[in-house]
Amino acid sequence: MATKPSKNLETFPNPNPERDYEINFEAPEFTCVCPMTGQPDFATIRIRYVPDQKCVELKSLKLYLWSFRDEGTFHETVTNRIADDLIRALDPRFIEVEGDFFVRGGIKTKVKVEHRK
Amino acid sequence: MATKPSKNLETFPNPNPERDYEINFEAPEFTCVCPMTGQPDFATIRIRYVPDQKCVELKSLKLYLWSFRDEGTFHETVTNRIADDLIRALDPRFIEVEGDFFVRGGIKTKVKVEHRK
Amino acid sequence: MATKPSKNLETFPNPNPERDYEINFEAPEFTCVCPMTGQPDFATIRIRYVPDQKCVELKSLKLYLWSFRDEGTFHETVTNRIADDLIRALDPRFIEVEGDFFVRGGIKTKVKVEHRK
Amino acid sequence: MATKPSKNLETFPNPNPERDYEINFEAPEFTCVCPMTGQPDFATIRIRYVPDQKCVELKSLKLYLWSFRDEGTFHETVTNRIADDLIRALDPRFIEVEGDFFVRGGIKTKVKVEHRK
Amino acid sequence: MATKPSKNLETFPNPNPERDYEINFEAPEFTCVCPMTGQPDFATIRIRYVPDQKCVELKSLKLYLWSFRDEGTFHETVTNRIADDLIRALDPRFIEVEGDFFVRGGIKTKVKVEHRK
Amino acid sequence: MATKPSKNLETFPNPNPERDYEINFEAPEFTCVCPMTGQPDFATIRIRYVPDQKCVELKSLKLYLWSFRDEGTFHETVTNRIADDLIRALDPRFIEVEGDFFVRGGIKTKVKVEHRK
Amino acid sequence: MATKPSKNLETFPNPNPERDYEINFEAPEFTCVCPMTGQPDFATIRIRYVPDQKCVELKSLKLYLWSFRDEGTFHETVTNRIADDLIRALDPRFIEVEGDFFVRGGIKTKVKVEHRK
Amino acid sequence: MATKPSKNLETFPNPNPERDYEINFEAPEFTCVCPMTGQPDFATIRIRYVPDQKCVELKSLKLYLWSFRDEGTFHETVTNRIADDLIRALDPRFIEVEGDFFVRGGIKTKVKVEHRK
Amino acid sequence: MATKPSKNLETFPNPNPERDYEINFEAPEFTCVCPMTGQPDFATIRIRYVPDQKCVELKSLKLYLWSFRDEGTFHETVTNRIADDLIRALDPRFIEVEGDFFVRGGIKTKVKVEHRK
Amino acid sequence: MATKPSKNLETFPNPNPERDYEINFEAPEFTCVCPMTGQPDFATIRIRYVPDQKCVELKSLKLYLWSFRDEGTFHETVTNRIADDLIRALDPRFIEVEGDFFVRGGIKTKVKVEHRK
Repeated sequence: MATKPSKNLETFPNPNPERDYEINFEAPEFTCVCPMTGQPDFATIRIRYVPDQKCVELKSLKLYLWSFRDEGTFHETVTNRIADDLIRALDPRFIEVEGDFFVRGGIKTKVKVEHRK
Repeated sequence: MATKPSKNLETFPNPNPERDYEINFEAPEFTCVCPMTGQPDFATIRIRYVPDQKCVELKSLKLYLWSFRDEGTFHETVTNRIADDLIRALDPRFIEVEGDFFVRGGIKTKVKVEHRK
Repeated sequence: MATKPSKNLETFPNPNPERDYEINFEAPEFTCVCPMTGQPDFATIRIRYVPDQKCVELKSLKLYLWSFRDEGTFHETVTNRIADDLIRALDPRFIEVEGDFFVRGGIKTKVKVEHRK
Repeated sequence: MATKPSKNLETFPNPNPERDYEINFEAPEFTCVCPMTGQPDFATIRIRYVPDQKCVELKSLKLYLWSFRDEGTFHETVTNRIADDLIRALDPRFIEVEGDFFVRGGIKTKVKVEHRK
Repeated sequence: MATKPSKNLETFPNPNPERDYEINFEAPEFTCVCPMTGQPDFATIRIRYVPDQKCVELKSLKLYLWSFRDEGTFHETVTNRIADDLIRALDPRFIEVEGDFFVRGGIKTKVKVEHRK
Repeated sequence: MATKPSKNLETFPNPNPERDYEINFEAPEFTCVCPMTGQPDFATIRIRYVPDQKCVELKSLKLYLWSFRDEGTFHETVTNRIADDLIRALDPRFIEVEGDFFVRGGIKTKVKVEHRK
Repeated sequence: MATKPSKNLETFPNPNPERDYEINFEAPEFTCVCPMTGQPDFATIRIRYVPDQKCVELKSLKLYLWSFRDEGTFHETVTNRIADDLIRALDPRFIEVEGDFFVRGGIKTKVKVEHRK
Repeated sequence: MATKPSKNLETFPNPNPERDYEINFEAPEFTCVCPMTGQPDFATIRIRYVPDQKCVELKSLKLYLWSFRDEGTFHETVTNRIADDLIRALDPRFIEVEGDFFVRGGIKTKVKVEHRK
Repeated sequence: MATKPSKNLETFPNPNPERDYEINFEAPEFTCVCPMTGQPDFATIRIRYVPDQKCVELKSLKLYLWSFRDEGTFHETVTNRIADDLIRALDPRFIEVEGDFFVRGGIKTKVKVEHRK
Repeated sequence: MATKPSKNLETFPNPNPERDYEINFEAPEFTCVCPMTGQPDFATIRIRYVPDQKCVELKSLKLYLWSFRDEGTFHETVTNRIADDLIRALDPRFIEVEGDFFVRGGIKTKVKVEHRK
């Protein structure tokens, strides 16, 4: 597996698809770029999901989050994008993605997206 | 006494000038304007002093802090300015002024000024 | 002993004047009146002293603090006044009086007075 | 040994008198009576000492503290009395006694006594 | 003033050079690149200084910290580099710079540099 | 509007009566008088309500709470009285009033009143 | 009203019997005697009730709790006794009494009694 | 009553059998012996029950818990045993027993047993 | 090495006797017996030392602390005894032993012993 | 650079040898083996040093700590060994190494080593 940023989310087969269980990630090292000003944004991304047939591979998730480093995108857009990409790759029974962004203009922003099969 | 913003710091005679004692103010409702961008800045101003012959009157201090609302000024300048105005009005035995500013550009700033007679 | 507000601080003989020891009071139920606006002020009064020949009687201290309920006085003045009255009544080896006042005009005030024989 | 309240502080020989070491008691179950009103007072008594030739036996200390249950005494007097009785019984190298009393008349009181041989 | 990353630290004249006072910045939005693996690193940068003739302008400090976003550098090197650049630009009476980095390889790293004129 | 204590609760029209929303006050500067002993009582008053057609004006609420300063009243009575006066003035969809009183006779008292239209 | 310990619980008419509301007491100054050993026990008594036609008067509650000072009684018995006496005196709509006792024999005991009309 | 360890749980008649109420014990001074290695084990035992006709006497509970000091028993066994012995002695309406054991082999163990009549 | 309680403190050669460094143990699983009543006592034992030529082996320390399980001893005596035995076995450059005992008779006791070569 | 466990500590030249500054590592993922029982031990290793001519490279430090995974060693020995290896590789102006080990036999151990050039 490469060690470059990539939008490719690799998966492995869920070892216990007959059972509902929860997987939880907290990634405090997320950065992208503001599409209005070109300046860097910072966030913690939290992902919580119940897998169906597939689980996301951890290193590929790191490279995926890294891939936004130079992209210009709104807080709301990127949080939905991460949710959409994970849904497409995993088709999970349930997923929740939260983007918890640093203060901009004196305002702290959180965006939370939820999807249920 | 008026109830309009004013740079005029009113004083009353120290009731016990023969004794060293400490007066402590915390004012979390301070706002001024960034001289670079014209956008509002917010801070908590903390003042600690040992009076000599004069004490600052509390309502006049409130109107004084209010008077910066529409002024454009750097964090470092306004903190020194408040210290200088209080030193000129009170000629205290000791004074410490701290400006504790909200995040701007992802950076939190504090400025602390101390003066001893 | 009466149960009315009174400026009279009653004392009893220090049971151990040959020894230095510390007595500590915290009185969160203090109220007086602002001399500028006539509106009520509230504070916690903290007293710490080393007695010499006399100790202040607790109930009389309560009635003494109560006696300020309808008096108009500045924060700085009343804190010094309490210290002065205790010094006159007790002639202590050491005393510290702190007035910790509630927010007025968006500003929180503390006044601390210390006296050593 | 009896199990009745008693002013008799029993001791046992310090097992290591050639060495300075510290013994620390915290007794939150102390009650006596207010000498002005006859009403019960409550306190935590804290004792810290460096023994010389004698240590106080724990059960006898319990019975000693219990012996104040029906006595009328000021906060300052009883704290000094406990210190004096321990000094007489133990002749310690160092002792500190603190009485930390519950609120009376809206005022919380602490008395702290220290003795060094 | 531009809004692009820049190694250029702009300054303004210290409004009170005749007085020693302290300026304090905390910047939790710092990212650079690991020189060994090319992967992103994240840190909080803390700066504390006593200005002499010059103060650093806040927006230019933000753009300066941003300028490391695509640079490969060791934790120790970048913390010293920030200290050196601020010393060259400001010639301060005192400065302390701390880089507080996120976990890498299961290890959390902090680097702290101090300089006194 | 006057600045004297007054039982008159002034109101203004609810700007959004078509919507349920909550208003929350915490007033730590409340004092009245014990009807048994004539001695002062102190409390924090907490008010939480969902307005219907009217909202209470803040300064008039302050003057209203001040109006109990010299009144003798039980803890239970005054807490219900405040609730009743607010219900009469506002006719709110929901209101909760809590009186959180200081220790008296070694006992801490809270009274909580709730009303639903 | 006397100032001696008394099992007599005085009441006053509930100022708002048409409404359900909650009254809450916390009394950390409770002591009684162990019926097995004759030694003192200590507890915090917590009372929470919804009055019907009568409220308990605070000073009489203090004298009532004081009246157990010299009585020998089990933890379970005294907690039920306090609940029973309050139920008989007040006939409340709801009452909960908790006795939270200090450690005895290395064991901490709590007893909680609830009654609903 | 003896003061030796004993499996005999003494009881006294429930003072209020007509009412459901809860009794709660926390005993942090429990020790027994590991049946595999013969080495000492330590635990906090928590007991919560609703008595029917009988209550357990506190000192006898202490002696009962002490009686395990030299017995070899598994964590699961001893927690169930305590529950069984209390059920046999008290026939309570409800009981919950929790054994909260110290770390063994890097693993912390809790065992919780519940019984309802 | 045996796994039975033993007063024998085994040592191993200090791997770095040319250097001062600190070793710190916290043992919350200590129990002995009260010499007055025969009942069990419980404590946390804390040991902090700077070795000279010898270090105490951890398992032998465990067996040593276990060896007090059936011994009757005062709090002060056992804390000094542990210090003395460690001093005799290790001849350390510095050692501090603290016994932090559970409540007995409503009193919590700590004993702290220090020795310097 | 390899990614296998290795006792080889790689270094890079100190970017600012003319200045004293502090580098701080916390590594909570350390495991080795007990030399007495062959069972795994776990610890957090904390390292704080002032470099002279060389700094330790972070990834090589990770591989170095990993290299103890299958080694049998006492707590005191491994903490000194890490200090010695870092001193030999870096020859730092100052270094402190702390091993903070998990509970073994009911005892928690910390070892702290300090070295100054």
